[in-house]
Amino acid sequence: MRPPVRFVRGRLDILDQRALPDRERILSCRNVDQVVHAIRTLAVRGAPLLGITGAYALSLSRDPEAAAKKLIDSRPTAVNLRVGVLRALGAKDPLREARRIHREEIDRCLSIARHGAPLLRGKRVLTICNTGILATGGIGTAFGVLLRARATVYALETRPLGQGARLTMWEARKRGLPAFLLADGAAAAAIREKGIQAAIAGADRIARNGDTANKIGTLGLAILCREAGIPFYIAAPTSTIDLETPSGSGIPIEERDSRELSRHFPVWNPAFDVTPARHITAFITERGILKPERIRSGK
Amino acid sequence: MRPPVRFVRGRLDILDQRALPDRERILSCRNVDQVVHAIRTLAVRGAPLLGITGAYALSLSRDPEAAAKKLIDSRPTAVNLRVGVLRALGAKDPLREARRIHREEIDRCLSIARHGAPLLRGKRVLTICNTGILATGGIGTAFGVLLRARATVYALETRPLGQGARLTMWEARKRGLPAFLLADGAAAAAIREKGIQAAIAGADRIARNGDTANKIGTLGLAILCREAGIPFYIAAPTSTIDLETPSGSGIPIEERDSRELSRHFPVWNPAFDVTPARHITAFITERGILKPERIRSGK
Repeated sequence: MRPPVRFVRGRLDILDQRALPDRERILSCRNVDQVVHAIRTLAVRGAPLLGITGAYALSLSRDPEAAAKKLIDSRPTAVNLRVGVLRALGAKDPLREARRIHREEIDRCLSIARHGAPLLRGKRVLTICNTGILATGGIGTAFGVLLRARATVYALETRPLGQGARLTMWEARKRGLPAFLLADGAAAAAIREKGIQAAIAGADRIARNGDTANKIGTLGLAILCREAGIPFYIAAPTSTIDLETPSGSGIPIEERDSRELSRHFPVWNPAFDVTPARHITAFITERGILKPERIRSGK
Repeated sequence: MRPPVRFVRGRLDILDQRALPDRERILSCRNVDQVVHAIRTLAVRGAPLLGITGAYALSLSRDPEAAAKKLIDSRPTAVNLRVGVLRALGAKDPLREARRIHREEIDRCLSIARHGAPLLRGKRVLTICNTGILATGGIGTAFGVLLRARATVYALETRPLGQGARLTMWEARKRGLPAFLLADGAAAAAIREKGIQAAIAGADRIARNGDTANKIGTLGLAILCREAGIPFYIAAPTSTIDLETPSGSGIPIEERDSRELSRHFPVWNPAFDVTPARHITAFITERGILKPERIRSGK
């Protein structure tokens, strides 16, 4: 499968995720401003993929210091973007370092998938948001596990931006993985009517006690799994574990633009929610399977 | 507030619900075919309101028998539509009977609201779908309770058709009721972050044991309430109780057009789900509050 960012002969080709699944449009960026624009407008998104993109982009500029600042400022809260850009900036050969970062993400995803696949082999599994190549640059975190397990995917639409409906479903078709799309509100009915056997999600941040911030809707999905007595997994690299944050109550709930939901009415539009560790059956990381109580020592 | 259907001087004015909340467009129907078209295209929907609409529409025709057949066939599964049309057809004065049906729905809603309001007085309450005047012709079932209780409404968007985002939010603004819109996936986070104190929904059908079919998403909402230890209410007229159906397993899950969710991918798009009686704190009916175990004798 074509990588969502690719550096070729002095330009960075970015697959425009805003146009999916209708069109596979490539943005050929020949300077840093074009990459900054792509990042700002969410043509490219997903924490690990932003790190890769920022690192490659540095090789488009003759003034790497200025380029690094512009890139980091384009999504100030994206930690991976900052780390990727600074690694490339500090390297003797920035392009070579960018390729190394990309390769590391690919390997990390493969390790996560290898550890997680036995848990979901051939099962019917709910998932939320997009956690595949479009988010990571590799086969994905939760999506990589589903892929390697040859699971049947039930993808939640993931309102308001529809990353499940647009991106996860597109990746599943590209990979030949059986997948069905459903409304976010249909998760509970799917567990009963479709014999769902597990759910799996990615993570934005994992606190020291195992409480996990992820896309809005993850908490509800975890509660439904617990009520139904089926496992709920988080698949994420150990770099997502934040030992500085003792528990989920220390993770602020970021709110997004209300117009994503309505141009007419007052809206509450949180970007993510926090799932307590007690609702998480296990964490699937590149170092193996961790129970929530092992998060502290897993890093 | 203007009624969503109104019979005046030989025409039936229907508020076109498809255009809400952007525009308040009136379809002035002067013959039965125009009403049939409005019903088929969901310009008018909601079980009790369809009964009222069908009954009024009979007075637009010089051949009431043929008109009745056309109207009933326009939404063959809508029981209220059939009942309303047949009542008007059997009456000496069909228009007078239509007005009586309308008045009955208004009264039933007022009784439900009167019984339910003390349970939700001034509280922060989650709700799903649209259950107000646009569905019932009266102040509504669940919405009527919220209105009379002067609750603060947290309205779930209710994908795929967005009846919460478009219709409930529009009604709340019209009525001056404080209301916030949220994505369906944000219900669990709202319960934690916004101090939600209860949830209330309407019902499509209530089985003899209290299991309740309603809009997709209702089951998940009920499970979240139970997990959080807050009450979950169903507000519905006793005419919704179907003593012929012993339990929820006898209620088939109707699937809707997949294009409501995606033109690209395989979809599972159930219209409603079934909430087990054990997740329902109480039923609010026009005859009073019923515990689930009292449903059998409530009718």
